[in-house]
Amino acid sequence: MSTSIAVAVLGAAGRMGAAAVHAVEQAPDLELVAAIGRGDDREQAVRAGAQVVVDLTVPDATRDNVRWAIERGLHAVVGVTGWDEDALAEVRDALAERPGLGVLIAPNFAIGAVLAMRFAQVAARYYESAEIIEMHHPDKLDAPSGTARHTAAAIASGRASAGLGPVPDRTRSDPDGARGAVVDGIHVHAVRLRGLVAHEEILFGGVGEELTLRHDSFDRVSFMPGVLLGIREVASHPGLTVGLDGYMELD
Amino acid sequence: MSTSIAVAVLGAAGRMGAAAVHAVEQAPDLELVAAIGRGDDREQAVRAGAQVVVDLTVPDATRDNVRWAIERGLHAVVGVTGWDEDALAEVRDALAERPGLGVLIAPNFAIGAVLAMRFAQVAARYYESAEIIEMHHPDKLDAPSGTARHTAAAIASGRASAGLGPVPDRTRSDPDGARGAVVDGIHVHAVRLRGLVAHEEILFGGVGEELTLRHDSFDRVSFMPGVLLGIREVASHPGLTVGLDGYMELD
Amino acid sequence: MSTSIAVAVLGAAGRMGAAAVHAVEQAPDLELVAAIGRGDDREQAVRAGAQVVVDLTVPDATRDNVRWAIERGLHAVVGVTGWDEDALAEVRDALAERPGLGVLIAPNFAIGAVLAMRFAQVAARYYESAEIIEMHHPDKLDAPSGTARHTAAAIASGRASAGLGPVPDRTRSDPDGARGAVVDGIHVHAVRLRGLVAHEEILFGGVGEELTLRHDSFDRVSFMPGVLLGIREVASHPGLTVGLDGYMELD
Amino acid sequence: MSTSIAVAVLGAAGRMGAAAVHAVEQAPDLELVAAIGRGDDREQAVRAGAQVVVDLTVPDATRDNVRWAIERGLHAVVGVTGWDEDALAEVRDALAERPGLGVLIAPNFAIGAVLAMRFAQVAARYYESAEIIEMHHPDKLDAPSGTARHTAAAIASGRASAGLGPVPDRTRSDPDGARGAVVDGIHVHAVRLRGLVAHEEILFGGVGEELTLRHDSFDRVSFMPGVLLGIREVASHPGLTVGLDGYMELD
Repeated sequence: MSTSIAVAVLGAAGRMGAAAVHAVEQAPDLELVAAIGRGDDREQAVRAGAQVVVDLTVPDATRDNVRWAIERGLHAVVGVTGWDEDALAEVRDALAERPGLGVLIAPNFAIGAVLAMRFAQVAARYYESAEIIEMHHPDKLDAPSGTARHTAAAIASGRASAGLGPVPDRTRSDPDGARGAVVDGIHVHAVRLRGLVAHEEILFGGVGEELTLRHDSFDRVSFMPGVLLGIREVASHPGLTVGLDGYMELD
Repeated sequence: MSTSIAVAVLGAAGRMGAAAVHAVEQAPDLELVAAIGRGDDREQAVRAGAQVVVDLTVPDATRDNVRWAIERGLHAVVGVTGWDEDALAEVRDALAERPGLGVLIAPNFAIGAVLAMRFAQVAARYYESAEIIEMHHPDKLDAPSGTARHTAAAIASGRASAGLGPVPDRTRSDPDGARGAVVDGIHVHAVRLRGLVAHEEILFGGVGEELTLRHDSFDRVSFMPGVLLGIREVASHPGLTVGLDGYMELD
Repeated sequence: MSTSIAVAVLGAAGRMGAAAVHAVEQAPDLELVAAIGRGDDREQAVRAGAQVVVDLTVPDATRDNVRWAIERGLHAVVGVTGWDEDALAEVRDALAERPGLGVLIAPNFAIGAVLAMRFAQVAARYYESAEIIEMHHPDKLDAPSGTARHTAAAIASGRASAGLGPVPDRTRSDPDGARGAVVDGIHVHAVRLRGLVAHEEILFGGVGEELTLRHDSFDRVSFMPGVLLGIREVASHPGLTVGLDGYMELD
Repeated sequence: MSTSIAVAVLGAAGRMGAAAVHAVEQAPDLELVAAIGRGDDREQAVRAGAQVVVDLTVPDATRDNVRWAIERGLHAVVGVTGWDEDALAEVRDALAERPGLGVLIAPNFAIGAVLAMRFAQVAARYYESAEIIEMHHPDKLDAPSGTARHTAAAIASGRASAGLGPVPDRTRSDPDGARGAVVDGIHVHAVRLRGLVAHEEILFGGVGEELTLRHDSFDRVSFMPGVLLGIREVASHPGLTVGLDGYMELD
């Protein structure tokens, strides 16, 4: 008999949290046992029999939430940013005493963004040129996006592994900065346009050809398949996994 | 009986000039009567009975070439950049004494680029956001391209005619300049990628929608339909025309 | 003193109608005086002092609604499909007796779609090849979309006005129909993809170059600027206007 | 001391062959020892000390050329189409007696097309919808392209491995075939446009998101990096390898 996985959502009143609550409720193989907002007692999750905790709270709270989940013997799926190496090391140490327990910390649950980044790292080995254009709504406060910065790093790592040097660029005159930001040696452009949500285009060029990888997020619901994948897989991936790609079959 | 138009090409040894010589030779309604390179005597064109002179030389020579063509009573189609208002005024004055004679000075003979720029000016009236991405091979020396600058000016003019204010942009943090150049209030991004030739993408955004205009020049031959259009139409457009769009039916 | 325009919405309970009610309420220069659903009495609009009626009902009701609006001396902005020549002629006859009264019947209120279609008609004169790709969500029942069919007709008309013959196509073997539908001589492709809403890409090709026009509708709200434009302009365009482009400055 | 690889090109007078001759001549680590056209004696390659033979002839000749190369103890890099299972089995058998000898048979040497196909197979596991648009010049005789058919097969295989069923499509009315060809359950569209060379766009859609992979071949030279990769790697891949991806690091 197949039994469902018991899930508690922390940060259930936020936008991402509410979407996760809805997605878990809709999934036939999952059971929502607790939806915990700011001010609620997270021990509800334990009393309700949760097996997996989804943390969609805020950077200030997430480290303590994961510490607590490990103590209580709950698998954790975490979609909060702001984790540094110290914090990750603490999680690894705590998990070392809890064999069988899994924690997934994923800065980006959009499966398409994860795929695009992985593909970019592979393709980077084979192209003389690479460049990134990220496009978002005009209310975004920072440029370029964190995803674009991660993608630039992935491309730089792919190029290094293939022994490629700097990208070719004979620009002599660029008085207004049209060539954009340079992140890890890769030019990154940020477009802000009313009507857009979150989009990334990764361009690779070689003699006589171009390869383009593009990911469009039209709606926050696009993160939910990644969250559900995390919930379903966390118990079979003991220890700490950083990045949703650790749970995906990418080759 | 339909007779062909007699054409002389100045700058025939350059890359654009050679392409024009070839295109004129291929056109059944045109006759190449002189192909004049650096050091050749341009009076050959007169002796050979040219009706239209195509000037594809260099900025240093073009002003004198047009002066000469008008004196000789030849229509002129000019694809050289570097014309300022003074130089244009001189042409207008000279043509005032030569009713029936036509001169076309066109910075860009790519019909698609001309169309994209015109469409951009019209669309600009109806969208809250507008942004430009130009893409070229990495050996280009300047950024952004002249075409992108002209397009930004066209968009700014369209926005002004509709009473639109600045484009929305709440960016607070952009430490590396990912938002690109700002030309006439419009953000312009320059991509440099091996394998590309000359490409421009013009993006318009409004609530819930996006309009994209894109022009790709894969090869210098793409300028030739515009050159031929100029040759065929110059005699029926007396006076000075600046920009190929003056000969096109754009509405 | 600037006074606002009094607006009544028919079909206010439908999805488009509800969006229009909201958009009118948000617009500072418009005043919603009646929101009339199925079964409500449309005379409410008259009693409330409406100057403009927006009809977003269904094909079965729209003809009678417009007849009624003209009788009551109300300008009408109509976003319902299914109008044939007979029905339009009846509107023209009724308006002949009502100088100063305006009716706008627009099959598509997306300004971007209207712009793309107009631009397509102009560009069609200058390109040897033209093709259309429309992309929608997979729950759409018909292929290709009505917008794509209209665009094909606009391209065909542009080509005819320039004396262009059939598009070049040397395909000899296409056993599975990959070349798509042929509408007015133009190949049209329909893509159906989960996550999409309504998108159209219009491709023009000539020797060495390509021109692409693309319109993306991400959300029904993208129709509202067109509805508001219609409401604001209908009183200054007496008689019948078919198509939102009649109110736009497109050249 | 690093010595160069001695290369012979069969089919050197064809367009691909001539490009390969040029590319080998330009590569500092390769030495062209024989360029053999139709009617020339291929034994020249042996006499000139070739280590690797590149076969860019025609389907009628390639099978015999590979048989001969194996007999002579030459590694072979083959870019000719038309290999069936029987022919491949014969190569495997012949190579079984020649340990250390390598043969690469690659239907497509465009690295970008190979990458796009591999990425498509991986991404296919994660998306409800997938569709292909291939775009070529209008002189192409068949539709859809072989690359598009192979991509459809790769997507179908990825979907099967993830247990995905048919793509969603509620189309009820498509009188003119706008939904295109269906290859291995995947809809494939073929666009033919003057000015294009060879382009493929692979679209994946899920709730709220889209992933696009696009490859543009602007010029035949884009195949050369793949040919050179094959020449450099064939000696370290004994036995038969089908597809350039067998020599690439794709994960």
